[in-house]
Amino acid sequence: MIGILGGGQLARMLALAGAPLGLRFKVLDPSADAPASHVAELVQGAYDDPDALRRFAHGCSVVTFEFENVPSTAAQWLLDHVRVAPSPRALAIGQDRKNEKQMFERVGMAVPAYRLADTREELHAAVQAVGAPCVVKTRRLGYDGKGQARLKPAPDLAAAIDRAFDELRPAECGGLIVEAFVPFEREFSVIASRSTRREVAVYPLVENEHRNGILHRSRAPAPDLDPRMQQQAEEFARALLIELDYTGTLAVELFVSNGRLLANEMAPRVHNSGHWTIEGSECSQFENHLRAILGLPLGSTAMAGGGYATMINLIGSMPAREELLAIPGVHAHGYGKARRLGRKVGHATVVGSDRAQVDAIAAKVERLAEQCAAAKNADWAVGG
Amino acid sequence: MIGILGGGQLARMLALAGAPLGLRFKVLDPSADAPASHVAELVQGAYDDPDALRRFAHGCSVVTFEFENVPSTAAQWLLDHVRVAPSPRALAIGQDRKNEKQMFERVGMAVPAYRLADTREELHAAVQAVGAPCVVKTRRLGYDGKGQARLKPAPDLAAAIDRAFDELRPAECGGLIVEAFVPFEREFSVIASRSTRREVAVYPLVENEHRNGILHRSRAPAPDLDPRMQQQAEEFARALLIELDYTGTLAVELFVSNGRLLANEMAPRVHNSGHWTIEGSECSQFENHLRAILGLPLGSTAMAGGGYATMINLIGSMPAREELLAIPGVHAHGYGKARRLGRKVGHATVVGSDRAQVDAIAAKVERLAEQCAAAKNADWAVGG
Repeated sequence: MIGILGGGQLARMLALAGAPLGLRFKVLDPSADAPASHVAELVQGAYDDPDALRRFAHGCSVVTFEFENVPSTAAQWLLDHVRVAPSPRALAIGQDRKNEKQMFERVGMAVPAYRLADTREELHAAVQAVGAPCVVKTRRLGYDGKGQARLKPAPDLAAAIDRAFDELRPAECGGLIVEAFVPFEREFSVIASRSTRREVAVYPLVENEHRNGILHRSRAPAPDLDPRMQQQAEEFARALLIELDYTGTLAVELFVSNGRLLANEMAPRVHNSGHWTIEGSECSQFENHLRAILGLPLGSTAMAGGGYATMINLIGSMPAREELLAIPGVHAHGYGKARRLGRKVGHATVVGSDRAQVDAIAAKVERLAEQCAAAKNADWAVGG
Repeated sequence: MIGILGGGQLARMLALAGAPLGLRFKVLDPSADAPASHVAELVQGAYDDPDALRRFAHGCSVVTFEFENVPSTAAQWLLDHVRVAPSPRALAIGQDRKNEKQMFERVGMAVPAYRLADTREELHAAVQAVGAPCVVKTRRLGYDGKGQARLKPAPDLAAAIDRAFDELRPAECGGLIVEAFVPFEREFSVIASRSTRREVAVYPLVENEHRNGILHRSRAPAPDLDPRMQQQAEEFARALLIELDYTGTLAVELFVSNGRLLANEMAPRVHNSGHWTIEGSECSQFENHLRAILGLPLGSTAMAGGGYATMINLIGSMPAREELLAIPGVHAHGYGKARRLGRKVGHATVVGSDRAQVDAIAAKVERLAEQCAAAKNADWAVGG
């Protein structure tokens, strides 16, 4: 039995990828209708509830995570009772933007300019050093644009800095970090897996496009890619996995700025920008995460399905099944979630041997999803 | 919610194929550890237990089957309470070898010569008409070589006919049928789906090889195939689906005898010889079964993964995970079953663009499975 802390769509896709390997799954989630609970055993409870953790860990040979913001009490309790992968140390580094950036630099990767600030005075000095425009972020507990404040060059910059300091409550979230605003040309991510046997597998670089701060489209391999950039990202991923003594699948978001790769942030888990690997790779990020934590040989990360893959996130609500499946070549993935504004409820992947054709089919999915978001008339969660 | 009568590996693979469509599943099975119960809700109970059937059908928008020998009482109860697909009429035809053969003939398909026999005298006459060698089968309730007797030309043929009559108990199984022994060159199967909207999709012909009466290897498309044979099989499948007013996926086993296709028997369900479609087709037989019974557009049955697929059944026990997954290009499917002699516990599929290479990798799986069967040292059911 494999335990997964969190029962969302990532846990669901891990369980679906693991079933053919003969693996069984238990998830811990506060929600009675967590997406993974449809295909795995659910222990319903809070992540820091010792009784729930006990029932969850019982019978598990290894516990893994579908998100990085694991409460430290839960991580410690699990460490004392069961094998845990990736290690809570790797999760902890990803939870602190300072440690994360320093680690990126340690393994030779450029990052956007940044300065740390704990006090009001330090924040003023940091903004001056980095220069506006810049982004002030909490070191811990930030996600999806939360725990951030953007600062523009303006006459009232000093007042804006004071407001940011008051709003972000640095004492409660490990202090602040001021990051230079990077005028990037492209956003990539690199996804890689490393096994307990120290085998490493890296997927081709993906190009990502966001809308309203949420991933909208991923294309793999990243189009018109300089092979040296793929090589640099791959070397970076390998160095990072080794530096963290990492076990499992990991993703790093990258910027291309002035033609040069910069590391933005990492996710110590399977990642939304790797969902295309289900149909687009010989072995998916999900299966390789499981192979990695179980010490099994990793599967090939070579492109499958023709060589090109495009994924479209479905946000808010799913298009009607009959309309989505009527588009030839679409692989639909509904997560069994009720609709909600801004919520990731599913994705669709198109694969093929012709980049333009793959993107054209994906564009049909985009249009359908836009109509659906406008009409709000579909809901897969109640279907079937 | 979709109900599946039976919770074995076919139900398991249906549930795994349906989850990405946002579908949820309930299975009825007498076993507490039925393979499908790992990924779907289980109602544990006998197929003819009215209380179990009630709990099973509750909340299901449609009920389908993973096997054809559904007790008629269960089929009737379900028909009265919930939408059922395929129709129990289609199942009933497959349950009676006479009706099945007559239907094959009605849609223009040749079958091996046969005669019916209810009495001892009729059996003697039927064997004389068909000629030895031949096979005597019960019209109903036969499967996997059970309910059969082979008759060879011999001086004591009359005594052998009497013994067959006594052993097969024709009064209990709808009478007997005597089939000519067909010296076939090859065994094929054709798999096809038909939706409630009458859309039909047919997969390329598969070549099957059996060992000890159990499917051992399937190769798709059937190598060195005369396109006219593919066309004939496809027309036959279409005619059969229409004749049965069928909904769902169906398989027909075919013989090639003297260069000509003969229909052997049909399975009104997803079929072992179609497991390769998970990786080898744009849309698998499992997903198309679900699309069909839900009236959704059918997916493409075109070959994916390079154009060639070979499936090896894993019988008795699974090879060790690390050894099976160490063979590059292998897609492993364990069913979560305990090992048992002669039991189908899993399969492995290899896909690629080079027929010889695909078969060579599959041959490695075969050798590993043989070693494993000899050593009996692996068991995926307890793993993970």
